[in-house]
Amino acid sequence: MDIGTLGGLIGGFFLIAGSIVAAGNPLYLYGDIASFIIVLFGSFAAMIAASPLQRSLGFVKFLKIVMNVQVFNKEAIITQLVGFADSARKEGLLSLDDALGDVEDDFLRSGLRLVVDGTDPDVIKKILYGNVSMIDARHQKGIDFFGNWAKIAPAFGMIGTLLGLIGMMANLEDVASIGPNMAVALVTTLYGSITANLVLLPIQFKLEDRNSEELLVKEIMIQGILSIQSGDNPRILEDKLYTYLPPADRPQKSESD
Amino acid sequence: MDIGTLGGLIGGFFLIAGSIVAAGNPLYLYGDIASFIIVLFGSFAAMIAASPLQRSLGFVKFLKIVMNVQVFNKEAIITQLVGFADSARKEGLLSLDDALGDVEDDFLRSGLRLVVDGTDPDVIKKILYGNVSMIDARHQKGIDFFGNWAKIAPAFGMIGTLLGLIGMMANLEDVASIGPNMAVALVTTLYGSITANLVLLPIQFKLEDRNSEELLVKEIMIQGILSIQSGDNPRILEDKLYTYLPPADRPQKSESD
Amino acid sequence: MDIGTLGGLIGGFFLIAGSIVAAGNPLYLYGDIASFIIVLFGSFAAMIAASPLQRSLGFVKFLKIVMNVQVFNKEAIITQLVGFADSARKEGLLSLDDALGDVEDDFLRSGLRLVVDGTDPDVIKKILYGNVSMIDARHQKGIDFFGNWAKIAPAFGMIGTLLGLIGMMANLEDVASIGPNMAVALVTTLYGSITANLVLLPIQFKLEDRNSEELLVKEIMIQGILSIQSGDNPRILEDKLYTYLPPADRPQKSESD
Amino acid sequence: MDIGTLGGLIGGFFLIAGSIVAAGNPLYLYGDIASFIIVLFGSFAAMIAASPLQRSLGFVKFLKIVMNVQVFNKEAIITQLVGFADSARKEGLLSLDDALGDVEDDFLRSGLRLVVDGTDPDVIKKILYGNVSMIDARHQKGIDFFGNWAKIAPAFGMIGTLLGLIGMMANLEDVASIGPNMAVALVTTLYGSITANLVLLPIQFKLEDRNSEELLVKEIMIQGILSIQSGDNPRILEDKLYTYLPPADRPQKSESD
Amino acid sequence: MDIGTLGGLIGGFFLIAGSIVAAGNPLYLYGDIASFIIVLFGSFAAMIAASPLQRSLGFVKFLKIVMNVQVFNKEAIITQLVGFADSARKEGLLSLDDALGDVEDDFLRSGLRLVVDGTDPDVIKKILYGNVSMIDARHQKGIDFFGNWAKIAPAFGMIGTLLGLIGMMANLEDVASIGPNMAVALVTTLYGSITANLVLLPIQFKLEDRNSEELLVKEIMIQGILSIQSGDNPRILEDKLYTYLPPADRPQKSESD
Repeated sequence: MDIGTLGGLIGGFFLIAGSIVAAGNPLYLYGDIASFIIVLFGSFAAMIAASPLQRSLGFVKFLKIVMNVQVFNKEAIITQLVGFADSARKEGLLSLDDALGDVEDDFLRSGLRLVVDGTDPDVIKKILYGNVSMIDARHQKGIDFFGNWAKIAPAFGMIGTLLGLIGMMANLEDVASIGPNMAVALVTTLYGSITANLVLLPIQFKLEDRNSEELLVKEIMIQGILSIQSGDNPRILEDKLYTYLPPADRPQKSESD
Repeated sequence: MDIGTLGGLIGGFFLIAGSIVAAGNPLYLYGDIASFIIVLFGSFAAMIAASPLQRSLGFVKFLKIVMNVQVFNKEAIITQLVGFADSARKEGLLSLDDALGDVEDDFLRSGLRLVVDGTDPDVIKKILYGNVSMIDARHQKGIDFFGNWAKIAPAFGMIGTLLGLIGMMANLEDVASIGPNMAVALVTTLYGSITANLVLLPIQFKLEDRNSEELLVKEIMIQGILSIQSGDNPRILEDKLYTYLPPADRPQKSESD
Repeated sequence: MDIGTLGGLIGGFFLIAGSIVAAGNPLYLYGDIASFIIVLFGSFAAMIAASPLQRSLGFVKFLKIVMNVQVFNKEAIITQLVGFADSARKEGLLSLDDALGDVEDDFLRSGLRLVVDGTDPDVIKKILYGNVSMIDARHQKGIDFFGNWAKIAPAFGMIGTLLGLIGMMANLEDVASIGPNMAVALVTTLYGSITANLVLLPIQFKLEDRNSEELLVKEIMIQGILSIQSGDNPRILEDKLYTYLPPADRPQKSESD
Repeated sequence: MDIGTLGGLIGGFFLIAGSIVAAGNPLYLYGDIASFIIVLFGSFAAMIAASPLQRSLGFVKFLKIVMNVQVFNKEAIITQLVGFADSARKEGLLSLDDALGDVEDDFLRSGLRLVVDGTDPDVIKKILYGNVSMIDARHQKGIDFFGNWAKIAPAFGMIGTLLGLIGMMANLEDVASIGPNMAVALVTTLYGSITANLVLLPIQFKLEDRNSEELLVKEIMIQGILSIQSGDNPRILEDKLYTYLPPADRPQKSESD
Repeated sequence: MDIGTLGGLIGGFFLIAGSIVAAGNPLYLYGDIASFIIVLFGSFAAMIAASPLQRSLGFVKFLKIVMNVQVFNKEAIITQLVGFADSARKEGLLSLDDALGDVEDDFLRSGLRLVVDGTDPDVIKKILYGNVSMIDARHQKGIDFFGNWAKIAPAFGMIGTLLGLIGMMANLEDVASIGPNMAVALVTTLYGSITANLVLLPIQFKLEDRNSEELLVKEIMIQGILSIQSGDNPRILEDKLYTYLPPADRPQKSESD
């Protein structure tokens, strides 16, 4: 569970609810099923129209990515790569064959497999970077999905408010009802803004961050795989790979952050 | 028929209509021919002024692209390419000549034709990528058409509302008519926002998605064509081409999505 | 005369006028010289401050580009280039010398002149692409001029409305005048929005389109010129150049659009 | 003095003042020292916080650039370069040594000095383009300064208006004061919009234009310097350099603009 | 302490407070704990949801970067590099070994260490530029953090205002309370705008500036390190490195800014 994302979301909603209560207003004033439906389902209908059915129905998959902490233990990956470089140097590239079974990461394992198979370095480079750019492109679709949704949701908030205002204005005789009707109308704008700014934008930013983190890990792996193949000095490889980490995470500090 | 796009659009409109009815307002309050005309035709007039006549009159062509599901059976294309690679290896490139008649896709067939004709690989690469970038440029014009329209439509919604407000304000004596007039004026803003957010933006996003999907398929074809010419191992080609598909669609999974 | 642009503009204005009349409001309500001046001349004053005097005074030149249909008969240009390639192959490059006088396009003629003069292909390439990028840069200034104007015009609409509102609010005793004063104030916002969305943005989009069309034609010419010099097969050249056109405009269709 | 920029600014302010007078409102209604201070000094305080002290205090330097017409007599520069190319061809590169003292432009002189000193062409290219990109980067900071200021100024206009509105609303008993208070509050929004749209944005656009003009002149100089070193034909050099100018400014016209 | 940033911030707040007092309004009208909480903590909750927990909790680190003047004495760095180039030329690269201990900057020291160790120039280049791009990427995350926060903060200002308006409108009977309630509601919008425009955006711009400044210094160091290794003339190196500084900071002026 990603405590940050969940905590941020829940905290944000509690802050909003708390500020309502603190102002002495009853919470039910701010609850309106119709407003909720028009904002969430209306904007989602637009997203369904905008995207392949498979993606909009599968958007939950991206939520799972957001909520689960992907543990990229970069130090462990570097240690593993340096270890492989070491044994490759001492016992030859073929010695990696046995160790491959223990490599959990599919990307790393398939890359090392190419090395063991004696594939040409340029071909390996092409395949691995091609893989990475396809992964990036797929993630980008998820990022764009939430980014576009975050743009459309406030518009549906405004659409809902306009629906309420128009209904109210066509019927202004009952002066006493103007205020409450206006309140209901504004709730939809409120929902649109909360949906976009507290839910969808944070999800988009989080997915972007996760993606850049994963691409960084893949870059470390590719650099490691290519160095192993070219027989680089394991010590130099370690130094090189640690430059991908912020100075605070390195064995010995060597630059300002 | 693309069920997603149509379903999303219709669903969105039903949600809006339903929320009106649920709020106890009569639907006719929200229907106003003049508002409809100023938003849709006014913004379309601006698009006609902005674009070559041929494109704005032919925009229906893009709608057809949006509504029709283009079946890019990528697995079938990969299988076909691998099959060609196989027979090219066993029986020579000329053996592809007979098979060309069965290739439905124009782009793929003309690319393979170049291979059979013995054209230089660099020339083939140039021609095919040149073709792809022209296709992309043409699609982009359609994408921009709807993107620009989506920017202009809400402005015409606001223009219509201003027209109504100005007329109303110049004549405020009849207090009873203020509300209904205001309602009518706001309907135009409502139409502008719905047109942009439920119709035009989803069409733009869908066209972008279709374009990136088509470019991906073309990239698969180009990689396949070039590999066939250079006599690559069909097995390696298959692996390579499947990296263009998400892991879930590959014969054997080899990386995280 | 570009019927599309003119028709779109006039049509848009008629739609707006028609919707006023249809709503039973007198047209004169919407006419206000001061509002017109503040929006159009105010925003133009800002553009004069923002641009070299020569460009802002010469902006009419760009309007002419917008209004005149530039007939780039691309098929004719391709035919001409293929013809030159043919005679260059049969009778040598020098045979083009006589034909140069008939070439109307300055860019094409000066490019072929370089070929006839025996200039090195790399030098020709550099000169022609250098030329094209300068043309592009010059057009871009015109495109930016209208783009920036379209951003500033609505701001001056709002400035005019604020001027009216402030004057009105400082003097609220005469309740009967509030409505009409408000109406006049809003007219300026209306003008700002119409100026930007029905006039300036369409001009910007049109100039962008014209520019990309001209760059495409120049690219066709450059490819043709270089192929003529290198003695390419006229048939292959024709195929190559036609890929720059949408499939519907080609002699024989060979790909989906 | 740049008549365009000054004239545009003054003209814009006169238009605004004129439209106030024409509407029969007294000018003093629109003057409010506190609003002026909050918009101009408030947004400038934000810019001081945002920028190195040296830059925000030195922003007047950029205003001088905006106001002074930089006379880049491009024709004269080309003539000079062609002259140098001529004498370099006839009398050798060392003959340029004497002429260097007359070259006013520092960039051009230091470039030619490198040629006379017999520096390697690749090194010269690197130094000169390195110089140009540093000049560009420094100008960009000034452009961004005004661009960011133009974004922040309207926000401070709104902040000032909110300050006024809040004060007014907390004290609504005196109904007669509502209008005038509202008027004063709106003046700040007016100032924010005028500051951004009539002053800061035009300055930003002008600086961008000046920068692109200067980079173009530097590009002409670099091309000239490199051609002189490589001993190019002065006639061909002249043709080449004139393609950087719009057709209308060339000795003989050779392409459409 | 960075006097500019702190002074700008404090100055901006004083201007706002001063304009309230000058308008004769009591300051307490503008203080509202609930509004403060919803804007600052609400938007921060969204940022926590959007970012890895470590980054949002560590955002104070970035504030420290903003507030501390990083003294990049570029002239001193250039002098140091030229000195190293001098002794490397006279006494050989190994002579730098002793001097390395005195180099304070980690980046510079580790780069020179590579030179002394006899590492291949291409490898050094790759390592140093790789380092720089990782530093840039890490800084960018901080810049984006404040940039995204600056986008979300005004939205929470509006959310808070909507919360207040809805509560007020549902309960319009007490006409006397409308004004004060409205005032309280607007305070939240005010806070959102001040937070974004006077605090967060300036911090973002400052971080961007600091980053570009640091990257420039790193570029100077890399150029110096590579020149030292290749044994360049110290005089030429000095000239080259000074082109990275604005003309006013150079020993002898050689171009216009």
